[in-house]
Amino acid sequence: MALLQSAAVPFNRDSLISLEKYEGLGARVRVGFGGGWKLRPRRRNLQLVLNTNVETINGKKVNGVCVERDTNLMNHEFLLGRFAEERFVFRQAYVIRSYEIGPDQTATMETLMNLLQETALNHVAKSGVAGGGFGATWEMSLRKLIWVVTRIHVQIDKYSSWGDVVEIDTWVDAAGKNGMRRDWIIRDYKSQKIITRATSTWAIMNRETRRLSKIPDEVRQELQPFYLDRAAIAIENMDTKNIQKLSDQIANRIRTGLAPRWSDMDANQHVNNVKYIGWILESMPVNVLEDYKMKNITLEYRRECRQSNVLESLTTINPITKQQHLECTSLLRMEGSHADIVRARSLWHSKKHTLP
Amino acid sequence: MALLQSAAVPFNRDSLISLEKYEGLGARVRVGFGGGWKLRPRRRNLQLVLNTNVETINGKKVNGVCVERDTNLMNHEFLLGRFAEERFVFRQAYVIRSYEIGPDQTATMETLMNLLQETALNHVAKSGVAGGGFGATWEMSLRKLIWVVTRIHVQIDKYSSWGDVVEIDTWVDAAGKNGMRRDWIIRDYKSQKIITRATSTWAIMNRETRRLSKIPDEVRQELQPFYLDRAAIAIENMDTKNIQKLSDQIANRIRTGLAPRWSDMDANQHVNNVKYIGWILESMPVNVLEDYKMKNITLEYRRECRQSNVLESLTTINPITKQQHLECTSLLRMEGSHADIVRARSLWHSKKHTLP
Repeated sequence: MALLQSAAVPFNRDSLISLEKYEGLGARVRVGFGGGWKLRPRRRNLQLVLNTNVETINGKKVNGVCVERDTNLMNHEFLLGRFAEERFVFRQAYVIRSYEIGPDQTATMETLMNLLQETALNHVAKSGVAGGGFGATWEMSLRKLIWVVTRIHVQIDKYSSWGDVVEIDTWVDAAGKNGMRRDWIIRDYKSQKIITRATSTWAIMNRETRRLSKIPDEVRQELQPFYLDRAAIAIENMDTKNIQKLSDQIANRIRTGLAPRWSDMDANQHVNNVKYIGWILESMPVNVLEDYKMKNITLEYRRECRQSNVLESLTTINPITKQQHLECTSLLRMEGSHADIVRARSLWHSKKHTLP
Repeated sequence: MALLQSAAVPFNRDSLISLEKYEGLGARVRVGFGGGWKLRPRRRNLQLVLNTNVETINGKKVNGVCVERDTNLMNHEFLLGRFAEERFVFRQAYVIRSYEIGPDQTATMETLMNLLQETALNHVAKSGVAGGGFGATWEMSLRKLIWVVTRIHVQIDKYSSWGDVVEIDTWVDAAGKNGMRRDWIIRDYKSQKIITRATSTWAIMNRETRRLSKIPDEVRQELQPFYLDRAAIAIENMDTKNIQKLSDQIANRIRTGLAPRWSDMDANQHVNNVKYIGWILESMPVNVLEDYKMKNITLEYRRECRQSNVLESLTTINPITKQQHLECTSLLRMEGSHADIVRARSLWHSKKHTLP
């Protein structure tokens, strides 16, 4: 299981506007909470503070001279995301940045997963039910409960390039009795085609005992108004099979001594779930990374990882000869105890035959 | 010296509007270039293609049902940056994302450096003189020349948090006979206060011989119209001293066996200059990382690094007792040859006494 960081949630009171019909919410979000989120002035009022602070550099005006500010250009709602279908679908746009693309000039899987995470967190932050932790609701925070992702599956039709604008939709639904499902679609903004689909399942954990918990009724009541019965990935296209556990005997390649860096740590001083992708790639042969594109990946998160842990990455590669594809099974485990951290299955298409 | 990645530049023809008075430019940017940049339709026309592609998921319309698109929300100029003072100052806004903050809940130095790089590259891309490489001009690309950063100095007054909007200005000037200086300021969008200042010097290198080159006259002529005699950091506040070379005898702490990951590689399969920050932090004691904030840093880039290189990170810490600050000198070097890659000097303020 991987942890989402716990941090102050930048709460936006504008979300009240679309949510004020929910009884009690209006009052609730106006009350501060010990976990640390802040009430901010409405973003729409930002325009009022423009140009009030004329800074100088080396005796020259910097703001003063230059700026005819076009208020059309300042729409932070676009940057920060907004609800697109009543309270159900949250939508946010991103420009792919130069440092988010890899050696093959397209957005990396780590970038995509980061953007999915960001959209999910902003969804919760703007829902009006946000508590103190990253992605946790008010009632969860009262009970010291946090979300942990247990499984995520991502299917990529097209990788974006630097400067491309993508638009991410996300929504949630119940998953069994004590889980939540979160889906995403990524559209290329220009073509409006769906280029990536993803689905994930989440469980609730007590942040002190580190044990999984049932969803308390109060939390379920917070979440239910947002549930949307829609699947980003049709059932027949889902990867629902368990992922085989790799052993030294089965693995084609083992990479040992992988040590988390300080810069891999998130706000809880845990490794953020997105960072695991980089380590999984460490046991892939370079010619696969160079000549193939990851078409889809499933990650099963099984245990948390802290900075003092040293990891091993194992991968086994099965060619699917008819289509010149590769199916890879990977395992991240602790060095020493060999305890599983993440299992992964990924499908790779040869660049000669496939994706842009 | 650190390399900027070479990749297709997303060229925006709108930049022609502000630049068409420069003789010859209009024609030049309309011609494709072998290095790979693309001409794209004007962003303002994007509105015309909206809602033409109604995708379905599980038989349900996804775009169709939901979307009243507010064209005010789609202003990509805001996301992509624009010229703020004629052709001199390029300005771009960013929202700090959840995965760009560190354990102390604020944007990391790596995040700030990434945003500086992104703004610089978009500046060149929109200047109308962009060639095939990241940040290279047309005349540079013709001569197989690339920019390498030799020194960067960053001063931070305030670190931003998740959801904060920052606005980055950048501009260039001559630096001696064969160099270029690039400066940046980062403003907090809400307060309009300058929260970070940075300056850097760049040299030109032949990408095949890997040797430094003079600036050819044709390149100088491309650059000169953009030069602006303004310093982000006043001379009296600059860090211009050389950085002492650390040895095993002087260093307080040495961290060996640092291996670049595949995910650290940029489009040239070199380590991007921003990644060095993470390795420098690897030789800092954890209590410094936890209890102090980096107030400023100077990086001297001395040699490129490739994925096969294994690195060592050395740091020595000098307390400045009167103010409870620390001055750290760091070195990244090759394991084995001990050849310098990056030297760094950084000033850290105790969190008890300082920055938010």
